[in-house]
Amino acid sequence: MSKARLILVGAGPGDPELITVKALEAIRQADYILYDSLVNLRILDLAGRDINDERLIYVGKRRGESSKQGQINELILRLLQQNKVVLRLKGGDPFVFARGAEEIELAASQGFPYEIIPGLTSALGLASMHSISLTLREKSDSVTLVTGHEINPAKLDLWSQILKTGSTLVVYMGLGNVVELCQGLEENLAENIPAIAIASGGLMDEKIIYSDLKKLAQDIIDEQLASPTLLYFGKNIQAIHYKNIKNKLTQGARL
Amino acid sequence: MSKARLILVGAGPGDPELITVKALEAIRQADYILYDSLVNLRILDLAGRDINDERLIYVGKRRGESSKQGQINELILRLLQQNKVVLRLKGGDPFVFARGAEEIELAASQGFPYEIIPGLTSALGLASMHSISLTLREKSDSVTLVTGHEINPAKLDLWSQILKTGSTLVVYMGLGNVVELCQGLEENLAENIPAIAIASGGLMDEKIIYSDLKKLAQDIIDEQLASPTLLYFGKNIQAIHYKNIKNKLTQGARL
Repeated sequence: MSKARLILVGAGPGDPELITVKALEAIRQADYILYDSLVNLRILDLAGRDINDERLIYVGKRRGESSKQGQINELILRLLQQNKVVLRLKGGDPFVFARGAEEIELAASQGFPYEIIPGLTSALGLASMHSISLTLREKSDSVTLVTGHEINPAKLDLWSQILKTGSTLVVYMGLGNVVELCQGLEENLAENIPAIAIASGGLMDEKIIYSDLKKLAQDIIDEQLASPTLLYFGKNIQAIHYKNIKNKLTQGARL
Repeated sequence: MSKARLILVGAGPGDPELITVKALEAIRQADYILYDSLVNLRILDLAGRDINDERLIYVGKRRGESSKQGQINELILRLLQQNKVVLRLKGGDPFVFARGAEEIELAASQGFPYEIIPGLTSALGLASMHSISLTLREKSDSVTLVTGHEINPAKLDLWSQILKTGSTLVVYMGLGNVVELCQGLEENLAENIPAIAIASGGLMDEKIIYSDLKKLAQDIIDEQLASPTLLYFGKNIQAIHYKNIKNKLTQGARL
């Protein structure tokens, strides 16, 4: 009987224990695991998998290397045709800026069953971990998640309108365009607003910058932040942040 | 030595196994657990807690009953003063439309330490579970989460602009205003777009309606959907939904 199927799994935002119970169980049982560069390897360990097992396959893409998706697709199909349970492990949530739909479409188009196990998307998970409330009753009644790999005046205009209402904007993959992004928002908004950058969120080398719209781009250059970095903007994001309250528990080493 | 602290935990979107490993462990160890109406009781069971234990306290609010927050705050403080580890368990993520920041502020203002364990927010978790991709490369480059408990022309205008770009809008707590919401969006948009409603997501009585902007409000009335219901709108949300592909695995009973 055929057991072949594709399981698309979200690994969450770095901290291995922020994976779901369901995802961990699926990782324990899968035949092959194809994992991305944003996945913390401690997750495989937590699931009792031997890191040296050759059925754990690194398929991470680097910036601009999106052509690699074709090779990933070929590998997924080959393993499914060999009657394997293939688990595709992605950082964050597989359906938020992660091309999860494309891989599911691929399996489905060839007649293979699939399952999706969601993960904590990094923007929200990291904000909670750091007490940054993205919504706030009667002040910030929405949060918008966008990609920053392409910026244009229409987008800057819309994002500025969102920010003017007091709501929160979170930019994924915006590091390369951060100067243009901040300048554009600054020109559209009549005021400076709080801004936060989180690099390598949830990992050992995590860095956070608490800044504002006018200073953020320079702060990022000064602190040499690298990808992956999330950018947060909003009038209200700083007000309810408790970083400076001394009794906040430290969260311990998290790699 | 004082061990008193407040742990704010997100329970995720209904399916008990979509809680994080970290949250489950915290639930195992806490002295008192104060849980909301959106929390699936199977989670307490999964963590090995006896449902009849009087230290598991239901503090759910019903619609309009927000005054109850004062009583919850008093209870949290009283237990902290008794040197207890108090775990506050909320549906979804504690920092997305859940007033988590207020409870953290309360504990911190009285000098008690706190910790936050994020959960899958329902809008994203349920979408992934049902293969509804909220972002789509080159088509939908953002997703906006809003509350619908108050609608006005400025909000309808902004949300329509977001939808015109092809991006996705998810409305929490919008059931009471669904007629006004859909009519307002319809007047602003020049076209009809796909719309989806998910009621009691992830629970045994889950209902999903695949509809469009023009029909959604009537469909919701016809199907008698009740709270909690999430509303999804977007040109691209339907196109990548695979519900009708026969080889999709059913997800089994999920209560």
